[in-house]
Amino acid sequence: MWETKESKIIYNGKVVKLRIDYLGDGENKVREVIQHPGAVAILPLISEDKVILVNQYRYPIGRWILEVPAGTLKEGESPEECALRELEEEVGYKARRLKKMLTIYPSPGYSTEVIHIYLASGLEKSTQRLEEDEQITIVELGLDEAIKELSRNGEVDGKTFITLLYYKYVYRRS
Amino acid sequence: MWETKESKIIYNGKVVKLRIDYLGDGENKVREVIQHPGAVAILPLISEDKVILVNQYRYPIGRWILEVPAGTLKEGESPEECALRELEEEVGYKARRLKKMLTIYPSPGYSTEVIHIYLASGLEKSTQRLEEDEQITIVELGLDEAIKELSRNGEVDGKTFITLLYYKYVYRRS
Repeated sequence: MWETKESKIIYNGKVVKLRIDYLGDGENKVREVIQHPGAVAILPLISEDKVILVNQYRYPIGRWILEVPAGTLKEGESPEECALRELEEEVGYKARRLKKMLTIYPSPGYSTEVIHIYLASGLEKSTQRLEEDEQITIVELGLDEAIKELSRNGEVDGKTFITLLYYKYVYRRS
Repeated sequence: MWETKESKIIYNGKVVKLRIDYLGDGENKVREVIQHPGAVAILPLISEDKVILVNQYRYPIGRWILEVPAGTLKEGESPEECALRELEEEVGYKARRLKKMLTIYPSPGYSTEVIHIYLASGLEKSTQRLEEDEQITIVELGLDEAIKELSRNGEVDGKTFITLLYYKYVYRRS
């Protein structure tokens, strides 16, 4: 039923690759797929109850939004390497401990993207190195305070809210 | 800094529209944006502690995954109308009560997509009407059971897990 008869790359960009698959004849047999290299998100713990988030301008939605540090996998990079690199580049910390918490599919209806979510602890100050097009402010917040702030606001980054809720209510209790 | 100088639609498909924006000269001034009409997700409550989920084949990730009922906004449709329509079409229920819980951005780095999340209660049996390309199995689960199952599995649909965790740990307690 989902056998791919033909596959075409329509656009191969810096972030986005668009692929069209044909499963047979007819309009209902076309599948538009965003091919994504995968990503990581990191919850950096300063203490048991205090986390580091980033306030970041996101061009597609035209606004600043509070997020866990995150980034896209580079070619040949493992999710763990990517998590440690992004934590240092974006937030300016090295982590002595990194634990996998969860894997999420943010948009499985049209994108292959998968986000690997890590807990980082044993933090040591290093040097932040932002990319030219990144606009980021670092925010240290209590875990409860962060959840309260996102709940109050009501418009949230998906991976960030899931990371905070999962860490507090499931991961830490298990 | 983020003034759009030029904008091109590269692909205008059934689900995905790909737009390239130029903010100036140079590689770092290109923005690839997936234009998405927006979506809804619904948590249908059978009772205080029992929910309806759907097991759905998602072509981009090549697997079946447990999700809250969800769908994409049609032109001119409000999120509330879309939520009621999708609940009836996908799950075969009408809802007497619909409450907005949360809005999430699943992939703000490259997509405009926003998902409006609703709680549906006062359910009445109606008739399921699946689209030709939808493969869906309906699952009734206890709320705790659903959270446990997703936590155990560790690879989850983002909007689904955030909906379950938010409802249980934030929304219902407020």
